[in-house]
Amino acid sequence: MLVAHADLARFVAQVLVAHGMAAPDAAIVADALVWANLRGKDGHGVVRLPRYVELIQVGDLDPGARPEIALETAAMFVLDAKRAAGAVAMTRAVDDACRRAKAGGACFGLVRETTHVGAIGRFAYQAAETGCAVLMAATGPPFMAYHGTTVPSLSTSPLAIGVPGDAEPVVLDLATSVASIGRIRQMLASGRSLPDGWALVDEGTDAGGTGSRIVPLPMAGAKGAGLSLMFELLTSVLGGAPILSTHLGPEHRTRHLQNAFVLALDVAAFRTASGFRHDVGELTAIIKALPVREGFDEVRLPGEGSAAVERLRRQKGIPLLPSTWEALRSLGAAHSVDLPRI
Amino acid sequence: MLVAHADLARFVAQVLVAHGMAAPDAAIVADALVWANLRGKDGHGVVRLPRYVELIQVGDLDPGARPEIALETAAMFVLDAKRAAGAVAMTRAVDDACRRAKAGGACFGLVRETTHVGAIGRFAYQAAETGCAVLMAATGPPFMAYHGTTVPSLSTSPLAIGVPGDAEPVVLDLATSVASIGRIRQMLASGRSLPDGWALVDEGTDAGGTGSRIVPLPMAGAKGAGLSLMFELLTSVLGGAPILSTHLGPEHRTRHLQNAFVLALDVAAFRTASGFRHDVGELTAIIKALPVREGFDEVRLPGEGSAAVERLRRQKGIPLLPSTWEALRSLGAAHSVDLPRI
Repeated sequence: MLVAHADLARFVAQVLVAHGMAAPDAAIVADALVWANLRGKDGHGVVRLPRYVELIQVGDLDPGARPEIALETAAMFVLDAKRAAGAVAMTRAVDDACRRAKAGGACFGLVRETTHVGAIGRFAYQAAETGCAVLMAATGPPFMAYHGTTVPSLSTSPLAIGVPGDAEPVVLDLATSVASIGRIRQMLASGRSLPDGWALVDEGTDAGGTGSRIVPLPMAGAKGAGLSLMFELLTSVLGGAPILSTHLGPEHRTRHLQNAFVLALDVAAFRTASGFRHDVGELTAIIKALPVREGFDEVRLPGEGSAAVERLRRQKGIPLLPSTWEALRSLGAAHSVDLPRI
Repeated sequence: MLVAHADLARFVAQVLVAHGMAAPDAAIVADALVWANLRGKDGHGVVRLPRYVELIQVGDLDPGARPEIALETAAMFVLDAKRAAGAVAMTRAVDDACRRAKAGGACFGLVRETTHVGAIGRFAYQAAETGCAVLMAATGPPFMAYHGTTVPSLSTSPLAIGVPGDAEPVVLDLATSVASIGRIRQMLASGRSLPDGWALVDEGTDAGGTGSRIVPLPMAGAKGAGLSLMFELLTSVLGGAPILSTHLGPEHRTRHLQNAFVLALDVAAFRTASGFRHDVGELTAIIKALPVREGFDEVRLPGEGSAAVERLRRQKGIPLLPSTWEALRSLGAAHSVDLPRI
């Protein structure tokens, strides 16, 4: 089932507006979810909309929240997101961080108390398109097992690094798990089985069933686990909004919450932007032309695979699983929002 | 063969002074190399001293270099290391970054044109001990294969993240390869064989032989490769001192060079330092007490294994391989420097 991306975004925004979100914010969230689908990151795409609505209904996501700067110095700020949608808070944080970087060379922004950040690469593109190099990460509730443990104890903390490029930005976007929980869910929903080492799956349950307990494992074992733990310390704990210790500690509070940080560097403060872009183009061309190892089709640059998917999906439409389509249909019907055209 | 760490550092410093390094700088480098040995990171330890001497002799490491701030704004600086020893440049950069972070909340420092940075965790401890949270990475000559290629095309870029902790700092220190080139070399030198997926080894050569061509592989495949590439863009290319493209491009210049970045955040600018330290202690205690997975002895925090090795080696001494001892003996003999006591 193929849906045009613009019409899908229109639908998502209308559903969010029907749940009390202001139209400009709804457009930002819709755009971020559909962008994930366009880039082939379907686990962070519109499949999340029912969950966003649920978060609004239980009061964990405030559709009317207006994020505010809680703290700032010459080189950093803390954005209190007040439980705004992740895309709204991140768009604002990247905007602020890049504006401040243009003034002072660099800026570190902390985003406190937001909700599902989604495909973090989106915000790295946003920064790189303004001429900033950027490094950002997000943390959230524990889904992934810390290295050597059996229980969900770490966020699958996504990380993105982006720079302006010769033609377009070069953006690396990854989860600190072997695969993101979204991708794992999407794989199971589409009936595929998980490769070895991706997750712990409770024995006696069907890995494809929705009731089975799936615990993603960190990439590179102790390294991925360490990165995720340090991101929690650098964001949630530094911002005074700990997530893991409230979930795992004696309080055992499990309310949905995410935090993030954004480091923005104004390329032009370091060297001429054109010289930088030229050198990025030169290096990526060199990497792209390296001899290909047996078993690989080509050498792929960060974001290159997703860019190819995006070109295709912008033209042909976004494929949706029947289960996702059904969920969207229910949301549309509940609020008389016209379904996107197939 | 066990050597006391203080006497080993005395020896290393004297050898460096004999090669023209000022005593305070030689003490910094000696301390960094011996620290790596103390922490069990022997591949970055005194085994590197002969190479440092060689770098001085061919003019790639300037023992008399005085790093200088080449560029600065309110929130960032570029330190031109002028081919100083990596430990000298990094110590200075962390010092500057933390001092500026204390004034402005956060500071991003770029270190341009230094040499072997070594065990990067050392400098994260330095920052955390002053009350700063820190994130840093370094790049250097290509040793590791980009994902899907057969040739050395990426640095094994080390990365460190550190924060002040309840009792002592929590520091994560990793290479973006499955294992650092130092550790791989050390394993081969000690006659052990490499686990699968750690490196490409030329067929027809003995993996343990010194003549075999070893190309380390990135951790988590495309993810580790992407991180290393992005670190080159964020440090070398942003600083105008590209390494990979000069090595791999048509110029094919292969002079030793490293670059690095340091992001320092003054914890006290975000919240009370005591509150932060308390919460770090709370979370690490929770993680440490999680149920242990089959096949693991215990849950280990970042730096915990190395800290245990350090306690032991401070007391019992640092074990050196016969090949390392022989190399040190030659260096000592050439300059009438007394060998460390065994």
